[in-house]
Amino acid sequence: MNREINRQFRLATRPVGDIKESDFEYREEPIKSPQSGEILVRTIYLSLDPTNRIWMSDRPQYMPAVEIGEIMRGVALGVVEESQNQNFKQGDLVSGLLGWQDYSLAEGKTGTSVTRLPDPLPTSLTAFAGPLGFTGCTAYFGLLDIGKPKEGETVVVSAASGAVGSIVGQIAKIKGCRVVGITGSDEKCQWLLEELGFDAAINYTTADLEKAIAQSCPNGIDIYFDNVGGSILDTVLTKINLYARIPLCGLISTYNAKEPVPGPFNYSQILMQRACVQGFIVLDYEPQWSIAITEMAEWINQGKIKYALEIVEGLENAPKAILKLFDGNKKGKLLVKVSEEPD
Amino acid sequence: MNREINRQFRLATRPVGDIKESDFEYREEPIKSPQSGEILVRTIYLSLDPTNRIWMSDRPQYMPAVEIGEIMRGVALGVVEESQNQNFKQGDLVSGLLGWQDYSLAEGKTGTSVTRLPDPLPTSLTAFAGPLGFTGCTAYFGLLDIGKPKEGETVVVSAASGAVGSIVGQIAKIKGCRVVGITGSDEKCQWLLEELGFDAAINYTTADLEKAIAQSCPNGIDIYFDNVGGSILDTVLTKINLYARIPLCGLISTYNAKEPVPGPFNYSQILMQRACVQGFIVLDYEPQWSIAITEMAEWINQGKIKYALEIVEGLENAPKAILKLFDGNKKGKLLVKVSEEPD
Repeated sequence: MNREINRQFRLATRPVGDIKESDFEYREEPIKSPQSGEILVRTIYLSLDPTNRIWMSDRPQYMPAVEIGEIMRGVALGVVEESQNQNFKQGDLVSGLLGWQDYSLAEGKTGTSVTRLPDPLPTSLTAFAGPLGFTGCTAYFGLLDIGKPKEGETVVVSAASGAVGSIVGQIAKIKGCRVVGITGSDEKCQWLLEELGFDAAINYTTADLEKAIAQSCPNGIDIYFDNVGGSILDTVLTKINLYARIPLCGLISTYNAKEPVPGPFNYSQILMQRACVQGFIVLDYEPQWSIAITEMAEWINQGKIKYALEIVEGLENAPKAILKLFDGNKKGKLLVKVSEEPD
Repeated sequence: MNREINRQFRLATRPVGDIKESDFEYREEPIKSPQSGEILVRTIYLSLDPTNRIWMSDRPQYMPAVEIGEIMRGVALGVVEESQNQNFKQGDLVSGLLGWQDYSLAEGKTGTSVTRLPDPLPTSLTAFAGPLGFTGCTAYFGLLDIGKPKEGETVVVSAASGAVGSIVGQIAKIKGCRVVGITGSDEKCQWLLEELGFDAAINYTTADLEKAIAQSCPNGIDIYFDNVGGSILDTVLTKINLYARIPLCGLISTYNAKEPVPGPFNYSQILMQRACVQGFIVLDYEPQWSIAITEMAEWINQGKIKYALEIVEGLENAPKAILKLFDGNKKGKLLVKVSEEPD
């Protein structure tokens, strides 16, 4: 990493269908100095998430789309290198929307706002890019606040070996639920069962999904934590119980679609079973994040929550790495290591 | 009406697509005498409702389907003619699932359970077949408990001139909301605007729905009370506000479909706007019905809630009358008058 230049990736074109590396434009700029109220942050870990695909499109979405030519938006962990803000000092670890770049100016009048990580850290720094970061908080609030799991209920989660799904399942186990994960390979099924303690795991690429769900959920489905939408949602809907809760976290199966995608054919089941589909975004829970982080850090330190990281080295590899979100070969949280952790 | 025989309509065949009169079989049986614990009820008003179409099918549903050969299920108001049950006496007015017949045995070990109407009645008896009956309670709980309207919010209701929709809109007005009704004719639009006090009304058969909704809902949509599903739902989803609530009451646009019907193409808006789609059935609110009836009766007597009835004379006309639910020419609550009200 050259301390003199700030490497960046900007959005070059809006992807049509799958993301291509050429949708990003590489650029080098001088590192700026923080003005009054600002801080200069060096990016350590850049988080790659399915929601990045939404931001790259101009479809209706929950934040403004990234504009063409703008630095690609991304959640990242970083360290304060210089501070002109009394609330931050050099060496503070922070998280925020730092973007796909080596350095960013944050806070102040125009900079993105960041959150300081606890000092000392209760766990490793990387945990704050996964279970204690946006994806972990997404799992925590989506399951507990919307799903409202009760002991003995059956929870099904899609994209179960992903950054969110793997945490959802483990929290549901802590709450005494039967947990069934749907994922894309036998190896990931094994991980869910043997490492994370799921009660059942279904490889949707090979299973007869309807039969597999019926077998894995003999008492029906009380909570379906949906990360994917599409045909998995449709099949799950046929097995939901009365008053089922469906925290709607993501629809990754549809993000790369070139044509309008129909909603679930079994939409009427929401009526028949008096189910609740509730969309949510972790940003809505910002005032409560510290509650989640405190409790989840304990669970991690007690060994009740495990997590996997897939760390790609080097910012230069981010445009290629993001494709891993959609090819079904990733396990846990996908990160790009942009620079070294402080000692 | 012959006091010696009990005319009945039984389900002859499950409709494919639209209901046909021949889906019902007419039969005459002797009137039975109530045994210990039972009451004999004479039907006065039989309610015809979109949900009847669901009961006639064998699709997954919220109650058992009506079996072939079984008396067609229907909500009705009646009067107790003979009682072998200490909780009921001759002349009591009751409501319940009395079915498509002149007389029924209720209560006891095997009879359907009925609810006694208040004595004296706070309003006309027919109000208990509409705004103070199942459809009115559906409107009340769906809007207030699920929709949670706040003053100044915008409420859109589909099938707005129907038995449920017309009440939803008026309750929303009482709660200080802007109310937009979607219905199927200019004449019904006029009724919504001039008689019921809606702020805007859209004839979906002639309007450019997207444009009309945009014009009628300059501040977006906070609550969409959905009775119909289909393309109207899809268009509404493009205009919902953050944290919108969508009480899912019915999907009448899909009930007669012969092929699987896709869910909304704009399903992802539920995620983007963090909206909530909550299916519900009025039966779930049974313990609270009396609260709704008391408050709604007051509103009716104060002139704040008006209602229309379309009363078809004679049980023999029920199989033809039910078609009116689906042809878009009905206003308010559809009833069959089976016998005379007591003096």
